[in-house]
Amino acid sequence: MEKQQAIDEQLRKYFPDLPSGPLDNYRKKASFDWRRMKLVYDSLNTIKLKHDVWSFMEGHPLFKHTEATRELDDERHITTKRMYTIYNEQFLRFEKIAEDPKAFQAESEALFMFDSSLAVKVSLTFRMFSNAIQGNGKGHHYHLIEDVEKAKIGGCFALTEVSHGSNAKGMRTTATYVPEKRQFVMHSADFEAAKCWVGSLGKCATHAIVYAMLISKGKNHGLHTFVVPIRDPKTLKPYPGVIVGDLGEKIGLNGVDNGFVMFNNYHLPKEAALDKLGGVNDAGDYETPFRDPNKRFGAALGILSGGRVHITSISTCYLQKAIVIAIRYSAVRKQFGPENAAEETPVLEYQQQQIRLLPYLAATYAMKIFSVWLSFTHINMAISNFMGDDKNAAARGIELHALSSAVKPLFGWTSRDGIQNCRESCGGHGYLKAAAIGDLRNDNDANCTYEGENSLLLQQSSNWLLNVWARRNTLTPDDSPLNSLQFLDNVDQLLKEKCSWKTVEDAVDPTNLIKTYKWLTAYMLKMTSEKVAALKSQGKDNFAAKNESQTFNAVTLSIVYGENYVLNHFYKSAVEYNDVNCRVVLLKLVSLYGAFLLEKHLATLYIGGYLSGQQGALVREGLVRACAAVTPDAVALADTLAPPDFCLKSVLGMADGEAYKHIQSSVMTYPGSMTRPEWWRDVVYWQSYAPSKL
Amino acid sequence: MEKQQAIDEQLRKYFPDLPSGPLDNYRKKASFDWRRMKLVYDSLNTIKLKHDVWSFMEGHPLFKHTEATRELDDERHITTKRMYTIYNEQFLRFEKIAEDPKAFQAESEALFMFDSSLAVKVSLTFRMFSNAIQGNGKGHHYHLIEDVEKAKIGGCFALTEVSHGSNAKGMRTTATYVPEKRQFVMHSADFEAAKCWVGSLGKCATHAIVYAMLISKGKNHGLHTFVVPIRDPKTLKPYPGVIVGDLGEKIGLNGVDNGFVMFNNYHLPKEAALDKLGGVNDAGDYETPFRDPNKRFGAALGILSGGRVHITSISTCYLQKAIVIAIRYSAVRKQFGPENAAEETPVLEYQQQQIRLLPYLAATYAMKIFSVWLSFTHINMAISNFMGDDKNAAARGIELHALSSAVKPLFGWTSRDGIQNCRESCGGHGYLKAAAIGDLRNDNDANCTYEGENSLLLQQSSNWLLNVWARRNTLTPDDSPLNSLQFLDNVDQLLKEKCSWKTVEDAVDPTNLIKTYKWLTAYMLKMTSEKVAALKSQGKDNFAAKNESQTFNAVTLSIVYGENYVLNHFYKSAVEYNDVNCRVVLLKLVSLYGAFLLEKHLATLYIGGYLSGQQGALVREGLVRACAAVTPDAVALADTLAPPDFCLKSVLGMADGEAYKHIQSSVMTYPGSMTRPEWWRDVVYWQSYAPSKL
Ligand SMILES: Cc1cc2nc3c(=O)[nH]c(=O)nc-3n(C[C@H](O)[C@H](O)[C@H](O)COP(=O)(O)OP(=O)(O)OC[C@H]3O[C@@H](n4cnc5c(N)ncnc54)[C@H](O)[C@@H]3O)c2cc1C
Ligand SMILES: Cc1cc2nc3c(=O)[nH]c(=O)nc-3n(C[C@H](O)[C@H](O)[C@H](O)COP(=O)(O)OP(=O)(O)OC[C@H]3O[C@@H](n4cnc5c(N)ncnc54)[C@H](O)[C@@H]3O)c2cc1C
Repeated sequence: MEKQQAIDEQLRKYFPDLPSGPLDNYRKKASFDWRRMKLVYDSLNTIKLKHDVWSFMEGHPLFKHTEATRELDDERHITTKRMYTIYNEQFLRFEKIAEDPKAFQAESEALFMFDSSLAVKVSLTFRMFSNAIQGNGKGHHYHLIEDVEKAKIGGCFALTEVSHGSNAKGMRTTATYVPEKRQFVMHSADFEAAKCWVGSLGKCATHAIVYAMLISKGKNHGLHTFVVPIRDPKTLKPYPGVIVGDLGEKIGLNGVDNGFVMFNNYHLPKEAALDKLGGVNDAGDYETPFRDPNKRFGAALGILSGGRVHITSISTCYLQKAIVIAIRYSAVRKQFGPENAAEETPVLEYQQQQIRLLPYLAATYAMKIFSVWLSFTHINMAISNFMGDDKNAAARGIELHALSSAVKPLFGWTSRDGIQNCRESCGGHGYLKAAAIGDLRNDNDANCTYEGENSLLLQQSSNWLLNVWARRNTLTPDDSPLNSLQFLDNVDQLLKEKCSWKTVEDAVDPTNLIKTYKWLTAYMLKMTSEKVAALKSQGKDNFAAKNESQTFNAVTLSIVYGENYVLNHFYKSAVEYNDVNCRVVLLKLVSLYGAFLLEKHLATLYIGGYLSGQQGALVREGLVRACAAVTPDAVALADTLAPPDFCLKSVLGMADGEAYKHIQSSVMTYPGSMTRPEWWRDVVYWQSYAPSKL
Repeated sequence: MEKQQAIDEQLRKYFPDLPSGPLDNYRKKASFDWRRMKLVYDSLNTIKLKHDVWSFMEGHPLFKHTEATRELDDERHITTKRMYTIYNEQFLRFEKIAEDPKAFQAESEALFMFDSSLAVKVSLTFRMFSNAIQGNGKGHHYHLIEDVEKAKIGGCFALTEVSHGSNAKGMRTTATYVPEKRQFVMHSADFEAAKCWVGSLGKCATHAIVYAMLISKGKNHGLHTFVVPIRDPKTLKPYPGVIVGDLGEKIGLNGVDNGFVMFNNYHLPKEAALDKLGGVNDAGDYETPFRDPNKRFGAALGILSGGRVHITSISTCYLQKAIVIAIRYSAVRKQFGPENAAEETPVLEYQQQQIRLLPYLAATYAMKIFSVWLSFTHINMAISNFMGDDKNAAARGIELHALSSAVKPLFGWTSRDGIQNCRESCGGHGYLKAAAIGDLRNDNDANCTYEGENSLLLQQSSNWLLNVWARRNTLTPDDSPLNSLQFLDNVDQLLKEKCSWKTVEDAVDPTNLIKTYKWLTAYMLKMTSEKVAALKSQGKDNFAAKNESQTFNAVTLSIVYGENYVLNHFYKSAVEYNDVNCRVVLLKLVSLYGAFLLEKHLATLYIGGYLSGQQGALVREGLVRACAAVTPDAVALADTLAPPDFCLKSVLGMADGEAYKHIQSSVMTYPGSMTRPEWWRDVVYWQSYAPSKL
């Protein structure tokens, strides 16, 4: 009791009362404490960390937004300055991560909530570079980690080439060992072999982690990593032999200077090879601690799994911002109403508005809780790998790989669709740049592509699941330390069951939803496995059989597997949450999220014979009702999720709910908005450049 | 035969052979003549018109693209100059539209293919303004039409207000008649009553069509139109009493200057009222040729239906460009391949790539054919209304309203999803601004909102359908001159039927698909009607009952009604097409499109009892196979749809298929791409602005 009081006091300190205004009505209706709800995914520690970062930004002139979009070069400039400024503050020292592994995700979230380009730049320049050296390098490389930690040099990560991205094995950058000189000669045969898309390489990076084919004594030993000097850290001029440039404008993330680089017989000392996992000795003979070369390749690419984990959390941040904007605006936007009503109705009250927003509000909670946990789990794994104290590290690693390969696409796509719904739900004003939803969409778009194109990544999970299916009768808990295979318990029995729902209530009961998901996941796995087998029995090789069992099979399987895990995790977190009012609302969100997910798979449930008759209609009715049930709490749920106004920077979504006032102030102060254009003569005297034929 | 030769010759003249290169392989596989296929939606006349417009642009310096996005003001400037330059050429004189009503859509398409902002500006400044005066004004207003046709003045269309858009009846701009002065006083009470989002008002327009509440003798007569001088055509300075400004940046369409305006007791002569359909006499007494005031309101808003028709065609143009880019790029992008294969496989060959693109390729054909027809039908209607020679004009108008209210959202959303799939299917390079897909997405986004927010527009169709359902047993062909109610033939019998498919072939047979769609449309209408009735019998009023029957009922109904019509129209056009090779391919596209549409409604078909057992799985398998069947023709189908390269302006989608060369040239010539940033010191000496704590 006293403890709760102390916590509440802390929360109040970080989150003072929200400004009174048009949102008061909804806030009064809330059935729970919006501050306490934060602790379902945050801790006082992570809250404090984010608060520190945001307070610093709020007081610093570099972190003020401009009305008009900057030109590309200016955008890069300010993002770079912000990067050094924020990095220099060291909000999260390495030691602190070990103390509270959740701090890592929290700091990243604080940056993403402010500006995604900034967050990406920090992560590429400092973190990814250090991690790559830590993971693939030896003692004599560690001075580079010190340099980058001191920001004397800046890193980047160069895997993708112009003509090869997903198919890393097809890459064509070569590093040929010359034993006489103890050097590697790095070379790009043509522009198609240029490294490209490399974030922070366009303008800034001094060093790159480069993946190249290691060639020695005429033999190609496959892809290896090298740390390659690109620009002189004192002048930022590229070294001779390095042709480096910027990719120009992108759909989003324009503060990040994505670049390309070609190497023209560029000589590197032998020490450039990050050869902990394999490389040549001075004589040019190949040596590796791995017996199976595939294992080395896997381990070398292993560094990428952290990226996927990170992206589940990035996607969540984008959706989180969009949903806050759309919910708050829908609560103050009034349009139409019953005949003779004194006031128009907030559009949030309309069924068709609810169905487009509230499932994504529920999804945001599910995703937030899950992504915080995933990041925490990933870091804990890294720590225990480092300590060597996890006996089951390999199985855990593989399962995490499969799970993150499913959830990264799932979250990228959920955010994509959710943000789009938010955009449209805000009507005309949602199309304002100043509403901020368009930029969220543009930035999130990249999440569907980098760190593994979504559709391809799903193949990683399904491959593992198919493998698991074959040995489903001999699985032990050790095969699934994260418990993502729980749906295989008693699977043969399970698949014989049929759905027993009779009422709308049945259809949205969390435990029923979870049971159905279990069935669905198992069914999809069985179907996919049978499909692959059928294709093979028609004489197709593995490559063809795998390709031709993607649509409606393997792809759906991986998505369902991810959804199943996230739904279960959400339910568990809700049931266990200590605050009773919050718990009641969380369980409503679980129902809503579950019914929303399931509705998309109704056809499969019928095809599989699990559902029959009108049961699908019960889910739909249940979903609509679950939306209505959450509506009175929607604004408070958005308040819980909302970052500070200066991060949200949306005229529609501010905490005070004064959308029209913010629109007015924004349009009236937009540079030049009220003045006659300088080129007014080209309107009045258009015949001066187009002699009239009219 | 000879005639065909002459046609082929003409086609060759307009469309010379495409450049040889990486796309040759696929082009050789094509089973039909890509030039002849154009005539399924175009005529030699419309082809010539588009050719003329494009040739003019291609030879004119103003129509050259820049690498870097222009600043907002520059973008407006060049769009305005292009507008006058192209309008001045008078590619389509009024007389020619009557000669060939298809020319209207063709000219607009030519502009949209080049730049959407340009097309929108032309349409708002000249066409919409003239139409509004024609429709609502009297003889003494026609001098304004002459002025705008001579481009002495420029128009815009001001309906939306800051706090009221969809709910036009709630608008608050007032025009109060003062009989002593024979004047109206136009006033905006506050910023929330400001007209906003008005295209071309931000910087350019001299006159606006303004919708305001007409008040006379203390009585509010509802929304009426006025033609209001905004800026002096000689100086472009706003008149006193007019506070006009620009909305600033938007998500897309940034060449268009959307603006807002507030009137401060602004005096207008009585002649400002466009009072053909109703208004006050000199004494201030209200007079109207309509007996029912709702009819006047309907007629006054009637002008908007042309906008919806127009948007079906705009959405189609956007998707058309995106799909051309993605198909061509997927044909040249190779990644992975069977073990030991000499070459990697074009990604277009992968099932999961096909399912994301080919249904949208089919959809583009369906949409193209339909939107050309819809525009033609709409213009013919306008002409015969003008002539007064259509005895069934009222019914035709109502049906067109319902149909376009369904199809405008359907097409906006299909383009939205298709463009997004194109974006993702192009992997990393699809995220380049120079790939051009991002801008298509941003521009199309507005299609979901303006001229009626999609979700709300669907309610217009469903309202009409519900009304029709009630009198389904007494309908005559006169009720449905466009034949969109054909699904109601024998409906009671129809709804008793069950699906009889047994094979995958059955499931994608066009006539079977069409039959199923008929059932589905009828079923959705019946269900929605029963839902509304059930809600009313629970005591809900009409407003509540309509609102609570949207999700999974009325909204789906309208979409299905639109899909049904478009699918039937596509099938008819395919079957009747004279070229046999083209016909075969078109019928494959009909199968693909039909199966694609139907797959989304499988659950409903099970719930309704039409499908049972594994029939849904047959549709899915059929869909996947239909994709594979279209793949060899996909590039040629894209060639048919492709505008000239300078319109497409995508490094990934050029006709020569040399994606990598165009990427190289684009990134290497992007301003500043290869140079050290001016701000390099802020990287090297970052401590100068952030004293190091590291
Ligand atoms: C903003 C951004 C930042 C980036 N930053 C970096 C960075 O810092 N460093 C770096 O190295 N890279 C970076 N990348 C590159 C990124 O990792 C790749 O673009 C991504 O991995 C996708 O690869 P790709 O472009 O080769 O796609 P492709 O493989 O060419 O994909 C094209 C299409 O083909 C399909 N396809 C390919 N193979 C198959 C198959 N076997 N079966 C079915 N379909 C298939 C894909 O699903 C996709 O639809 C970045 C990219 C972006 C957009
Ligand atoms: C690029 C662009 C150009 C434009 N050009 C012009 C122009 O030239 N002239 C002009 O006058 N206007 C213009 N507009 C304005 C446009 O017509 C309106 O924005 C559009 O009609 C939508 O209205 P709204 O903004 O009021 O949306 P709102 O009605 O506020 O919609 C917000 C949300 O509420 C929902 N909603 C509202 N009522 C209901 C209900 N009863 N039931 C269920 N849901 C409901 C909507 O579906 C939507 O999701 C333009 C807009 C844009 C974006």
